Amino acid sequence: MASARQVNIAIIGAGGVGKCFLGQLEKLAQRKPSPKLVLTYISTSKKALYNENHAAISFDNVTSTLASSSQAPLAPSKLVNYLASASSKTVLVDNTSSQDVADAYPLFLSNGISIVTPNKKAFSGSYKLWQDIFNAAEQSGAKVYHESSVGAGLPVISTLKDLVETGDEVTKIEGVFSGTMSFLFNSFAPTSGSGGQWSAEVKKAKELGYTEPDPRDDLNGLDVARKLTILARLAGLEVESPTSFPVQSLIPKELESVSTGDEFLEKLPAFDSQMEEVKNAAEKEGKVVRFVGSIDVATKQVKVGLEKFDLSHPIAALKGSDNIISFYTKRYGSNPLIIQGAGAGGEVTAMGVTGDLIKVVSQIA
Amino acid sequence: MASARQVNIAIIGAGGVGKCFLGQLEKLAQRKPSPKLVLTYISTSKKALYNENHAAISFDNVTSTLASSSQAPLAPSKLVNYLASASSKTVLVDNTSSQDVADAYPLFLSNGISIVTPNKKAFSGSYKLWQDIFNAAEQSGAKVYHESSVGAGLPVISTLKDLVETGDEVTKIEGVFSGTMSFLFNSFAPTSGSGGQWSAEVKKAKELGYTEPDPRDDLNGLDVARKLTILARLAGLEVESPTSFPVQSLIPKELESVSTGDEFLEKLPAFDSQMEEVKNAAEKEGKVVRFVGSIDVATKQVKVGLEKFDLSHPIAALKGSDNIISFYTKRYGSNPLIIQGAGAGGEVTAMGVTGDLIKVVSQIA
Repeated sequence: MASARQVNIAIIGAGGVGKCFLGQLEKLAQRKPSPKLVLTYISTSKKALYNENHAAISFDNVTSTLASSSQAPLAPSKLVNYLASASSKTVLVDNTSSQDVADAYPLFLSNGISIVTPNKKAFSGSYKLWQDIFNAAEQSGAKVYHESSVGAGLPVISTLKDLVETGDEVTKIEGVFSGTMSFLFNSFAPTSGSGGQWSAEVKKAKELGYTEPDPRDDLNGLDVARKLTILARLAGLEVESPTSFPVQSLIPKELESVSTGDEFLEKLPAFDSQMEEVKNAAEKEGKVVRFVGSIDVATKQVKVGLEKFDLSHPIAALKGSDNIISFYTKRYGSNPLIIQGAGAGGEVTAMGVTGDLIKVVSQIA
Repeated sequence: MASARQVNIAIIGAGGVGKCFLGQLEKLAQRKPSPKLVLTYISTSKKALYNENHAAISFDNVTSTLASSSQAPLAPSKLVNYLASASSKTVLVDNTSSQDVADAYPLFLSNGISIVTPNKKAFSGSYKLWQDIFNAAEQSGAKVYHESSVGAGLPVISTLKDLVETGDEVTKIEGVFSGTMSFLFNSFAPTSGSGGQWSAEVKKAKELGYTEPDPRDDLNGLDVARKLTILARLAGLEVESPTSFPVQSLIPKELESVSTGDEFLEKLPAFDSQMEEVKNAAEKEGKVVRFVGSIDVATKQVKVGLEKFDLSHPIAALKGSDNIISFYTKRYGSNPLIIQGAGAGGEVTAMGVTGDLIKVVSQIA
């Protein structure tokens, strides 16, 4: 029997976002005693903490307790059984970027376990997985929220869903969807001043922690393609996968197969002239170059790559590592609805997850 | 006994926003058959439609049926009794800007009737009414949502609530909160070109339908002050009323008491030199003047009036009658979270109401 005033929380992942989320969850549970939020499971890829009777796990020193735990994480099918046998409803918080966990979402959802997550993999993998996830949720009544899968805590997914559900017609979505790409191009081709050498900016971005350990994982455009896939599907397009539309990679062909990120960075300066040409071509038109994604809903065209923008365009004027997302719709007319701000970082990503959790709890408690 | 899969909808107001909302509601009810959305009451200030047995009112020609109805609207206390006696839960949609309806919100909420509304009056009147509303909702479990009370359908209220509820610290909120003021200053003091005469721009704005029938109702700043009051309260400040902080009026003292809006417009050109001075003073600093509102949460300072902005500032670069709202928070750091787009208009305002309705229904059905 489900108790109405308690919701159990199970967490997979305790890395950067996971740690920030734990901090936010602890404060939320203190501030809002009703419904009672009870942590009943937490795991990393190697360790786990849980009790067979679903007793509350204390937030005090939970990450160090977890690190020294002798329990191994439960495989998805076992985790489903453990969570579904509790007397209260459960929300699974997936703070990993794991495809394996994502593949198990339909199983969790069909067993009545709601999901909130910043994990892009579930929503940008095969279209079949997308359908399986939302069909399972529809049938069981469990909820699945993933605000932080695009633009971290920025209200991107919720705004698009509101537009679609209230009957607006989204015609085009355009923007800068990667904090890394934003930082790189805002420094490499600023609206005033000359900017740095391409390879030097990539190196700097890596040193500042703005890139993946191997910067090619940002420069290949796949991260942006995954986000576009999610938004296009929410706008009603049956996009098969993030590789089913044109995605421009900024990795020179010759460096695709070098073995390490460090070797890549070492050899990148030899290709600076290519990027310099792109920058100069834009400058000749009085423009700057930016790495953007766009979805034309009517023609069903999704694409990711370099584009030129007037200096007065909001995309050109972006600062730091900010994201910007413009929604062009029938109701909003020629001036789009724009969302702008930090689209990466532990606390703002966790904020999207915590916000989703609050919304799910308000519906299931 | 409440039926879980039907929600009754009662609507007060069938003007500009009301008509747009009716269209959106009809399509929503068709598209999402579960829970069933049933219209059980609709009224203007003079007429009403309802059946004692809460039978569904057809959406077909509902506004003309309403106009020729012989039923008078129910007073709030009678409406509460009528709605609360239904076997399904009810959402009251207040599409008026009536203080009388707003004053009755605590009564509706304490009787379990949820409210969605673009009506600013309830949330920007006395602080006591604000407290009564949210206390009544807290105690009965009924919901109250008012996204369109600030920035129409732009996700302003929901974003601020997410920031606060997830534990972020909002330090400052700043922006252009009036479509009328945005249009006036974007035309009067554009970032390029010289702009028009002040009185001519006001006249043009009125002719385009961007102002209230008497433009002084926009120029007195009270509309912006009401929106600031709402946001400041959501950010945790106990703002007593929209007249309890500095609000700059753009109505020349000498024209405050002229009897009609037309007379005001006729006499306004004599005061153009005053506004011209303001514009020139900004230009000398390489800036433009804009009518903005700001909330400094730490110092508890709320103010509304003219400010100067660099040409590259997002507030200066605004177009048409767009609103822009910047949230500065601890998590977002030096670059704020920005929301921008049309902040007025029937369809986008109704969109905020419909979006709220969907959220409320998902929690009570």
